[in-house]
Amino acid sequence: MRGVIMYAPGDVRVEERADPVIEEPTDAVIRVTAACICGSDLWPYRGTDTLRAPAPMGHEYVGVVEQVGADVKSITVGDFVVGSFIASDDTCEICRAGYQSHCIHRVSMGAIGTQAERVRVPLADGTLVATSRQPTPHQVRGLLAASDVLGTGWFAAVAAEAGPGKTVAVVGDGAVGLLGILAAQRLGAERIIAMSRHADRQALALRFGATDIVEERGDEGVARIKELTGGLGAHSVIEAVGTQESMMQAIRSTRAGGHIGYVGVSHDVALPGRELFFAGQHLHGGPAPVRRFLPELVELIMNDEIDPGAVFDLTLPLEDAAEGYRAMDERRAIKVLLETESA
Amino acid sequence: MRGVIMYAPGDVRVEERADPVIEEPTDAVIRVTAACICGSDLWPYRGTDTLRAPAPMGHEYVGVVEQVGADVKSITVGDFVVGSFIASDDTCEICRAGYQSHCIHRVSMGAIGTQAERVRVPLADGTLVATSRQPTPHQVRGLLAASDVLGTGWFAAVAAEAGPGKTVAVVGDGAVGLLGILAAQRLGAERIIAMSRHADRQALALRFGATDIVEERGDEGVARIKELTGGLGAHSVIEAVGTQESMMQAIRSTRAGGHIGYVGVSHDVALPGRELFFAGQHLHGGPAPVRRFLPELVELIMNDEIDPGAVFDLTLPLEDAAEGYRAMDERRAIKVLLETESA
Repeated sequence: MRGVIMYAPGDVRVEERADPVIEEPTDAVIRVTAACICGSDLWPYRGTDTLRAPAPMGHEYVGVVEQVGADVKSITVGDFVVGSFIASDDTCEICRAGYQSHCIHRVSMGAIGTQAERVRVPLADGTLVATSRQPTPHQVRGLLAASDVLGTGWFAAVAAEAGPGKTVAVVGDGAVGLLGILAAQRLGAERIIAMSRHADRQALALRFGATDIVEERGDEGVARIKELTGGLGAHSVIEAVGTQESMMQAIRSTRAGGHIGYVGVSHDVALPGRELFFAGQHLHGGPAPVRRFLPELVELIMNDEIDPGAVFDLTLPLEDAAEGYRAMDERRAIKVLLETESA
Repeated sequence: MRGVIMYAPGDVRVEERADPVIEEPTDAVIRVTAACICGSDLWPYRGTDTLRAPAPMGHEYVGVVEQVGADVKSITVGDFVVGSFIASDDTCEICRAGYQSHCIHRVSMGAIGTQAERVRVPLADGTLVATSRQPTPHQVRGLLAASDVLGTGWFAAVAAEAGPGKTVAVVGDGAVGLLGILAAQRLGAERIIAMSRHADRQALALRFGATDIVEERGDEGVARIKELTGGLGAHSVIEAVGTQESMMQAIRSTRAGGHIGYVGVSHDVALPGRELFFAGQHLHGGPAPVRRFLPELVELIMNDEIDPGAVFDLTLPLEDAAEGYRAMDERRAIKVLLETESA
């Protein structure tokens, strides 16, 4: 089968890879109908994360089940499925508490590589959620977003306790930040402030429910958020970047007693203890337990109640993955969808 | 009047200070019947916090109202009162959300200095809680604990979401950590692990409701907590020290999705972003909004349902404050109560 391999920063190729097979009786193999490129794939692409060897890429996926292992019970060949970027058993104590991304048996789909025609999904019963019927092509795009960016934005909004009466600020205008806005809107937030200086992303932010746009960053951005919130800061802040600057912008934009949901993969961040202490907020985040939210998100998408697939502003065949990486790196695209030939 | 002044690390004196007067119409002046020395007073005493000039000391207090300003409505001369270490209006948006320690009009009682015969309490209506009747001498000790260490331990337990079915670990065996145990027990925690290597503190921990004692610290302490929790870590961890080591011990002792309530005043702490991110916990803390809990705590104490005053294992006259500081510094005392002559 064809699949994406990253050889070095900036060097992404589509090559022949071995077809996946059932390795454990709890595995499934799915035919990937669509995969995509994540903001986090840009960390190794830009050399911020070290790449030790050529690596299969991709952790987001939707597709049709082709094979299941002997122990798989709830997923059947032919099902249209979506799963999180972390495979989880959904039965351990951590999963049952809603933290499937920290499952004691978790497997990173990123290490398997879903930017490919087929993929092996471990712990298929726990990981995959099947749709009740075949999705439309439009719904497929939404379901693919649910695999990571929607689920992650949703978790960030929940972690930030976005809800009725709350003012929510969103740091980061990538797909996760934008879908955090959608989530905050669905959760009933009163006011949603998108921090963005890109016209295309601002437009999508407004479409997803943002009520205000703040173009300033850093201290100036914080000052603007304070101005808009009676000097107190937002009740809820979503952090969807992962740098020192974005974390401090999020913390300083939040009022005492407020909530920060941080989902940008942390890079070279050290949080100053004393400032954090006297700020008196709630901080929660990390790799999103997307699986917790998937049944609800799949339902919303299959009922056309939300349109998270709108974050995909460039669709390319899998063979053109390299161009997709370039487009995202150069910010020409918010998020790139890769269609397999078999789709 | 007589009051405690710290001149330099290790140099604490009891001297004549000007009698406090009503400065604002919202002030009250109280005759302090008992004050005490806080673990946080040891930071400047040990030179960890810089002292710029001789400073009045103390932020915990109970006493009898002697004077009230023209705008004070709910507090009357003769009331027996307790207040938090931070004066707050209890009416601003932050106070109403339960974060009185971050009140937009807050005043630090530590800057006023309550280790004295009398003290001016700003924002008296918002700050002070009056008892329904004169407390017994035993109850006075409990009420004094409520002023900070009990209220702070309680907040830590609430921030750590201690409750039914939860395993709670407590890092720090000072008065706050010990009273965090009492709070966790009252909140219904199933199992409470005290981390302590001092026999007197272990005994008090067990009396307050600890079910297990762990003597190990650092990585070994973390390993013991993991052993006791099926490899997962505690659901809830109270951090009541404020150092890098204690914060990391708390974070590493908590399971994914668990809650850390941190109330040790942060000193030279930098939290590693990446580790925090992948740990996936909830972090909440800071200066405790003791005022939120005071009405409930006063009730519990006046009904003799809890005995937080047990943390005071050394009682001295105010004149002997210097010996009190030495005793706490040398860990000969858990917490020192200072009685005024006027008590």
